[in-house]
Amino acid sequence: MVYITRKEHFNSAHRLFRPEYSDEENLRVFGKCSNPLWHGHNYVLMVTVKGEPDPETGFVMDLKVLSRLIDDNVLQKLDHKNINLEVDFMMGKLASTENLAIGIWDALEPKVKLQGSCLHSIRLEETENNIVEYFGNK
Amino acid sequence: MVYITRKEHFNSAHRLFRPEYSDEENLRVFGKCSNPLWHGHNYVLMVTVKGEPDPETGFVMDLKVLSRLIDDNVLQKLDHKNINLEVDFMMGKLASTENLAIGIWDALEPKVKLQGSCLHSIRLEETENNIVEYFGNK
Amino acid sequence: MVYITRKEHFNSAHRLFRPEYSDEENLRVFGKCSNPLWHGHNYVLMVTVKGEPDPETGFVMDLKVLSRLIDDNVLQKLDHKNINLEVDFMMGKLASTENLAIGIWDALEPKVKLQGSCLHSIRLEETENNIVEYFGNK
Amino acid sequence: MVYITRKEHFNSAHRLFRPEYSDEENLRVFGKCSNPLWHGHNYVLMVTVKGEPDPETGFVMDLKVLSRLIDDNVLQKLDHKNINLEVDFMMGKLASTENLAIGIWDALEPKVKLQGSCLHSIRLEETENNIVEYFGNK
Amino acid sequence: MVYITRKEHFNSAHRLFRPEYSDEENLRVFGKCSNPLWHGHNYVLMVTVKGEPDPETGFVMDLKVLSRLIDDNVLQKLDHKNINLEVDFMMGKLASTENLAIGIWDALEPKVKLQGSCLHSIRLEETENNIVEYFGNK
Amino acid sequence: MVYITRKEHFNSAHRLFRPEYSDEENLRVFGKCSNPLWHGHNYVLMVTVKGEPDPETGFVMDLKVLSRLIDDNVLQKLDHKNINLEVDFMMGKLASTENLAIGIWDALEPKVKLQGSCLHSIRLEETENNIVEYFGNK
Repeated sequence: MVYITRKEHFNSAHRLFRPEYSDEENLRVFGKCSNPLWHGHNYVLMVTVKGEPDPETGFVMDLKVLSRLIDDNVLQKLDHKNINLEVDFMMGKLASTENLAIGIWDALEPKVKLQGSCLHSIRLEETENNIVEYFGNK
Repeated sequence: MVYITRKEHFNSAHRLFRPEYSDEENLRVFGKCSNPLWHGHNYVLMVTVKGEPDPETGFVMDLKVLSRLIDDNVLQKLDHKNINLEVDFMMGKLASTENLAIGIWDALEPKVKLQGSCLHSIRLEETENNIVEYFGNK
Repeated sequence: MVYITRKEHFNSAHRLFRPEYSDEENLRVFGKCSNPLWHGHNYVLMVTVKGEPDPETGFVMDLKVLSRLIDDNVLQKLDHKNINLEVDFMMGKLASTENLAIGIWDALEPKVKLQGSCLHSIRLEETENNIVEYFGNK
Repeated sequence: MVYITRKEHFNSAHRLFRPEYSDEENLRVFGKCSNPLWHGHNYVLMVTVKGEPDPETGFVMDLKVLSRLIDDNVLQKLDHKNINLEVDFMMGKLASTENLAIGIWDALEPKVKLQGSCLHSIRLEETENNIVEYFGNK
Repeated sequence: MVYITRKEHFNSAHRLFRPEYSDEENLRVFGKCSNPLWHGHNYVLMVTVKGEPDPETGFVMDLKVLSRLIDDNVLQKLDHKNINLEVDFMMGKLASTENLAIGIWDALEPKVKLQGSCLHSIRLEETENNIVEYFGNK
Repeated sequence: MVYITRKEHFNSAHRLFRPEYSDEENLRVFGKCSNPLWHGHNYVLMVTVKGEPDPETGFVMDLKVLSRLIDDNVLQKLDHKNINLEVDFMMGKLASTENLAIGIWDALEPKVKLQGSCLHSIRLEETENNIVEYFGNK
């Protein structure tokens, strides 16, 4: 078993808040991340796929194919977008890094499987200091 | 003459657009950066001050003092804010990295001078790949 | 299960040596790291906590709370300190990166548990090239 | 159990191709990586060893010893070399990052074992964005 | 005057040697960089342009335009290529980082000027530790 | 004129203090950097030399020669040492990053000149966030 990782980037706006809370409650729970006028991040995304290298190509998965899957299913939806307002798989969810990593897994996992490959993990860095990793529902 | 640099970070939302343009014109000129629902960045800010080291302290300027000046006059206004809507020194200006670097210089230069020090440059990284540097009006 | 990581930094002095060895023996076993007049590092610390995201907040653990726990229980004791002489949880131990990572785990794990969360790993980078990871006593 | 990692670098030329393919077929399967006149990379190698810290030294394994093993068995063979033409453990294999990581594991694992230590993983970064990790034949 | 920088990457093979030298002489002068079977690097390229921000766009130069110029005139020629054998502007020159930076300046400067902008510097990192900067023929 | 830079690293202990001050005064002026039991850093050193590339080698200066000069005259004296107690060119000086950069310039400049080359700058990073640059006495 070999693990290959593709690193990508996207830049988005978001806000942490619950609509049923007042602005004061949101500020108390989510701090400055609850700013109603939004803030944003340069997210770093690392997608890891596992498998045996193909004897014909030496590849676990062609990284050009993986990169295109990420672009079509994740980056096109997130890059230069508002995570709360524009991303189909985040509708109605809190836009925390944890939920975003799970959302990216759910958007990408069936597409990777369709290629005959196996998604291992989603690593998402909101800032250099705040990092989330998700290995699927297990 | 010795140059000292303090590196800081802030996370903001912004949008590149001209209010007198239609959405289509803004899209043509500013691309996906014109998204009306905002996007954002982890900005990296490097503030450089120049001078002779003080014989008593060995410092060109106490970096704790410089860091506090940056925090009070720049980070408090920009971090987790919307650059277009909430930052006094960016009101009515295009929120390009160039204009933001100039705005930070103008906000910080008089405060550094009040401390008896000399601001040399503002370096602002919008992403790892897009960087602006400004040395004042000269 | 989702894994969240908070990255922090501290700068300390230390020395690798056994008090019952002569300086020559210490030099033979520990090389230049045994310098009796100390040397130091910018340590990078990555603390990983695991759990289910809270449905109310979207957080596995509030990173502001985790950051405060790390500050109170680890950084206050280590930052700008001498690891051999000043750090309670390193007294009488060799100040290797391995032992320091274990010491940080032992200092932090009960505090994380008190918050209802579960510490997963301590990653400690002494230099860019020398890295230790510890997952607890298992 | 503690995991220690040593990071090293090497710069090599390589080419992805199958000798039985035409240049056109190689281009179709391997893209610009199949250029018959070679290209190259600054590879980043991270070697992780696991074990209990030695009570006498505080070390899982002396990183100077590990670094020397990597230099003798991996870097001397790969650094400033042509991976396809000059590296004994890559002869007759596709020079993919996956196969190179496996080859480095196979070259290093017996040498680490001879020191009484246990190799845990080989992490190989071909570029900042393309990363492979291998944990041995399991 | 504001300075904007675009960072790009390319991966190439090269060799340092003089054709009129024997292999031994080349080895003596250029060390392992003279390997006749090539080696390679992940080059990091930083292109800096200077000027006044356009009052209409806030840009010194549209970084999408600059990025396209770099791609057309530099990356297409260098990426996944052999610098000694395939790059028109390096023919007959020693493939040192210094000469490559000058070659990139000469290839790019007229194209930047045609856009009405002013090239300020080429910064080229062969490795993290070996860096060249060129400001044109002055 | 081309500028070449060599990046090196060293790890040292130091303390900011004036011997004629009390511990309280030192704490007031230098903060936690005045800890009498020392602390330390992973310093990053970037040495820049300028000149015309030699037509025979394509080099402004052979970086292997520059690296050896830095090792002999700077790293041997600073790496794994106490800057206040063991470094000849820092004796009797405040161990600030500013003074250390000047000290490194003074130690290195005559050696670079002896090689027929011209030192341009010393850049010294005490931490990722605190950086000093010195261009000589002008």
